[in-house]
Amino acid sequence: MLSPAEQDRLTRVGPGTPMGTLLRYYWYPILASVELPAGEAREVRLLGEDLAVFRDPEGRLGLLARHCPHRGASLGYGVASVEGLACPYHGWTFDRSGACVQMPAENTSARLLQRAGVTAYCVEELGGLIFAYLGPAPAPLLPRYDLFLWEGVLRDVGRAQLPCNWLQIMENSVDPVHVEYLHGHHLQAQLGQDSSASPYSRRHEKIGFDLFEYGIIKRRQLVGGSESDDDWRVGHPLIFPVTLRVGAHSQHRFQIRVPVDDITTMHYWYSCYLPPPGKPAPVQAVVPLYEVPWRDEQGRFRVDFVDGGDIMTWVSQGAIADRSREMLVSSDRGIVLLRKLLSDELDRVQRGKDPMGVIRDPEKNRIISFAQEHNKLGGSVQFLRRAMDISHARFSPIREQVLAMLKD
Amino acid sequence: MLSPAEQDRLTRVGPGTPMGTLLRYYWYPILASVELPAGEAREVRLLGEDLAVFRDPEGRLGLLARHCPHRGASLGYGVASVEGLACPYHGWTFDRSGACVQMPAENTSARLLQRAGVTAYCVEELGGLIFAYLGPAPAPLLPRYDLFLWEGVLRDVGRAQLPCNWLQIMENSVDPVHVEYLHGHHLQAQLGQDSSASPYSRRHEKIGFDLFEYGIIKRRQLVGGSESDDDWRVGHPLIFPVTLRVGAHSQHRFQIRVPVDDITTMHYWYSCYLPPPGKPAPVQAVVPLYEVPWRDEQGRFRVDFVDGGDIMTWVSQGAIADRSREMLVSSDRGIVLLRKLLSDELDRVQRGKDPMGVIRDPEKNRIISFAQEHNKLGGSVQFLRRAMDISHARFSPIREQVLAMLKD
Amino acid sequence: MLSPAEQDRLTRVGPGTPMGTLLRYYWYPILASVELPAGEAREVRLLGEDLAVFRDPEGRLGLLARHCPHRGASLGYGVASVEGLACPYHGWTFDRSGACVQMPAENTSARLLQRAGVTAYCVEELGGLIFAYLGPAPAPLLPRYDLFLWEGVLRDVGRAQLPCNWLQIMENSVDPVHVEYLHGHHLQAQLGQDSSASPYSRRHEKIGFDLFEYGIIKRRQLVGGSESDDDWRVGHPLIFPVTLRVGAHSQHRFQIRVPVDDITTMHYWYSCYLPPPGKPAPVQAVVPLYEVPWRDEQGRFRVDFVDGGDIMTWVSQGAIADRSREMLVSSDRGIVLLRKLLSDELDRVQRGKDPMGVIRDPEKNRIISFAQEHNKLGGSVQFLRRAMDISHARFSPIREQVLAMLKD
Repeated sequence: MLSPAEQDRLTRVGPGTPMGTLLRYYWYPILASVELPAGEAREVRLLGEDLAVFRDPEGRLGLLARHCPHRGASLGYGVASVEGLACPYHGWTFDRSGACVQMPAENTSARLLQRAGVTAYCVEELGGLIFAYLGPAPAPLLPRYDLFLWEGVLRDVGRAQLPCNWLQIMENSVDPVHVEYLHGHHLQAQLGQDSSASPYSRRHEKIGFDLFEYGIIKRRQLVGGSESDDDWRVGHPLIFPVTLRVGAHSQHRFQIRVPVDDITTMHYWYSCYLPPPGKPAPVQAVVPLYEVPWRDEQGRFRVDFVDGGDIMTWVSQGAIADRSREMLVSSDRGIVLLRKLLSDELDRVQRGKDPMGVIRDPEKNRIISFAQEHNKLGGSVQFLRRAMDISHARFSPIREQVLAMLKD
Repeated sequence: MLSPAEQDRLTRVGPGTPMGTLLRYYWYPILASVELPAGEAREVRLLGEDLAVFRDPEGRLGLLARHCPHRGASLGYGVASVEGLACPYHGWTFDRSGACVQMPAENTSARLLQRAGVTAYCVEELGGLIFAYLGPAPAPLLPRYDLFLWEGVLRDVGRAQLPCNWLQIMENSVDPVHVEYLHGHHLQAQLGQDSSASPYSRRHEKIGFDLFEYGIIKRRQLVGGSESDDDWRVGHPLIFPVTLRVGAHSQHRFQIRVPVDDITTMHYWYSCYLPPPGKPAPVQAVVPLYEVPWRDEQGRFRVDFVDGGDIMTWVSQGAIADRSREMLVSSDRGIVLLRKLLSDELDRVQRGKDPMGVIRDPEKNRIISFAQEHNKLGGSVQFLRRAMDISHARFSPIREQVLAMLKD
Repeated sequence: MLSPAEQDRLTRVGPGTPMGTLLRYYWYPILASVELPAGEAREVRLLGEDLAVFRDPEGRLGLLARHCPHRGASLGYGVASVEGLACPYHGWTFDRSGACVQMPAENTSARLLQRAGVTAYCVEELGGLIFAYLGPAPAPLLPRYDLFLWEGVLRDVGRAQLPCNWLQIMENSVDPVHVEYLHGHHLQAQLGQDSSASPYSRRHEKIGFDLFEYGIIKRRQLVGGSESDDDWRVGHPLIFPVTLRVGAHSQHRFQIRVPVDDITTMHYWYSCYLPPPGKPAPVQAVVPLYEVPWRDEQGRFRVDFVDGGDIMTWVSQGAIADRSREMLVSSDRGIVLLRKLLSDELDRVQRGKDPMGVIRDPEKNRIISFAQEHNKLGGSVQFLRRAMDISHARFSPIREQVLAMLKD
């Protein structure tokens, strides 16, 4: 249970807030690469800030505050040239550093141009996603997490914009036992199937959490299993502050919860599918993007797939879950740990130090690999096949391609 | 004309408000029976409170505060077993009294379970509707109004969610003369027909209102008629506080205006259709539910049927009609009477007494029958046939069945 | 750059505000004539006021405050007879002066009727539009601007409701150089065409603004042109306070920006198309109305036509553009002039004088003609043909008819 002040400290992300300050030490995906052709711009929103991202004809990215300093029109509809992003209204052009380099209708002096600069932010691309950094300079390195770099795999990106705060989604990720009920019993009931038929419904004997360099390793031991099972021995990580690594065997995923503002989260499912050993994966020209639907035509939550159930619980908790009325119990100790970790990192940043997982050493950043179960919940291949049917992945445009590859 | 404070006292329905306290002495439909299969739950909202209603596999109903005390997820997406309603998130299970009886992931002590109780409310089913009672214990009896009990009839339930306060709808029900203009002249103009062709447009010679045990009997005498006509002699009742009885001959209806919150009303049209004397009605497996559409594609009100005209007047008065600017005249004396009655009943409740129509004697509650015109506005069968075309009933899924039955 | 107080003074239009007081000296279109058949009424909103406009069976127009003084129902759904507009609820009838002339259910005294009057406003019709005047009596004359009166032309009316304040749209109309970038380079980029192919993209050598009796004459000299070009010599007018005259050769338009409220503007494109000399125009039974779409299915602005680009800049500036953060430069001197003019006219009205362009002399009002370029941006016929493809006109229901007429 948190007081309203404690809750505000942990949840709110706007400029100048404590958590907004901490979260600004990290990079966040703001678009899929495939959404931003060369020469174009898009409006995006991150951590309560309105932005415009663009890609110039040579492929270089830029990220600027959205409103042109001249008359306030949206740079998100601008045209990107090699000089920079031109405001659609009068063509004032801003380079990737935010400097104004052209005012087509003016006799420009250096001083006039200088007055017209806009705030520029860091933006980079990796693995089919475009990432932004809004924090203090110098920017840390964009983390080269393993899935963004793997070769010889199929990838896709699912996405859903959710009307709730990011933290209640992250708390879900240090709550292993919800799987047993929500994805086991509850989902099976929705599908009209016996819950004993689902590996998700196996009872948790124990759960464990260990801090590691990049976050928290989550572990579970299921009834009939042992500490030598991957579920306990290996586990999978919450990568601080907004990413969860899930999957098993030949499917590996990040779930990235991007805080758009206090009450909006853009949820990304970033997936890698591995071909059978010794077989090549089909070559992808681009990493495709798809929307994950989560409401039906009547506006009710769709709870007939795993992630739909998750979304229902997150969103139904309220725009910002009211933690002054919660009742935490022993199986919620992962949540207690996460809040403590967030609070510690808030303190650390206030002392002027980098928080957890911020990377500034390129050597360390060649590739950052995470441990993840090979056999999950006691299953493997059949687990994957079923996941393609009952998770967000069933909406993927490459679903058939993935299934065909796995069948080989 | 009311002051803003007087208006607030009569209109606002949330917990702790004067009218909210009075209205909590009554039962309200919250769903049609057909909407809640065994084993399932639904989100509902009543008198400003968010709730979850469920039906267990043995058919028993439960009604609980919506948010799970654990982490706040919606119980309205829970699964109902014979033990009670299980939260979709972690399976915490609440019986119909609100007691927590299971926390699947915890070693539960009696004390832990006891801390986890949720507020439970009374819920019962009658005549194809599910009713809720949110008031003080002991709950009065769910009134067994005649239409809910009649045998050998066809039934249906129409419904529309309206963005306005309940009271302006109820005021319409003690305003007999609006029929003459709105449903007579105005509707005929919309239909491109001569208003003299409509029984609705007959001029009111006089109107009368009498308090009775359950509310107000409304009477009218139309031009060319007399006090011996059903319209005056019998009349029809406003059943305090939110129900109107209408119809005639072989069609009988309740219009129930359920206060969802201060600015939302769920309007139910509950209808019974009687077969010709000596003929049986077709057997219905369930009482069907249908939505009554009231806006067109451009967002304009649909005023081409009787109830669409009513809805236009109610909603266009504003979210809460501004009674500081109204101008009541002699034909509005039913409205003055209703406000006085509401005010008197507010006082009565504050003195600790049951308000009008609250029933605690089972003997009295075997069946509560209401008088209603047999011949209405001078017509009977042809009145009914026309009503099936120009009222909400034209959207009923059993419209053809009703017309066929009546033709026999 | 304006302070918040200065900005409020120039932008807000509600009753009692300084700008609302100034703007109430003028007439505004509220509907297209074709939208209001005889005998009917419509809801409209203007300058923050909710109104009902009607046309009686003899074709006479009336304009009243929207809510019936009796019970507050919308007169915008009333029926109009020769006596006046009847409230749909109880038939209280108001003549065009707002006097209540009937209360069908009451024994009416003259005194009772007198108490029931509603505020009436001036309304007139001209050239296929219905105009309203909400200001102080006596009303000035409805200006007989030339395009509303021309004979032997084809006409149409496009319309779009825009979620932004009127002033940022008007500022766009004293900003000639935006044409060069927005309608030249930016639009050509959207269309995938070379910007040098567009007459819009010719560079502005100089711009000029002259006050005249009815507003501001805008002038431009393009690169390669001279002061003897129509663009400079003739120019085109901003007709104070909310109208722009544009077009050239055989197409002539008013763009009228009607302030619905502080954050909503109804944009009208009123067009006249002239046949080739010596040829008759097809006869039109009515002036047709069409909606101009400006958002795509994803909710993004449509910037693939001239006016879609304009709308994107206006709306993306924000509901009320934040002029405390703008940076005006030399090419914005038209905007500075317009704000000064508005401020001067605000003062003039406060001194009890008529503001600019208010007409009270019928002799002067026979027809008010405005100068406008014949050759625009160096082009003429081919300019028109292209405009039919890349402007709002491409959505006109008479587009093919116009093109056929011009081809002759």
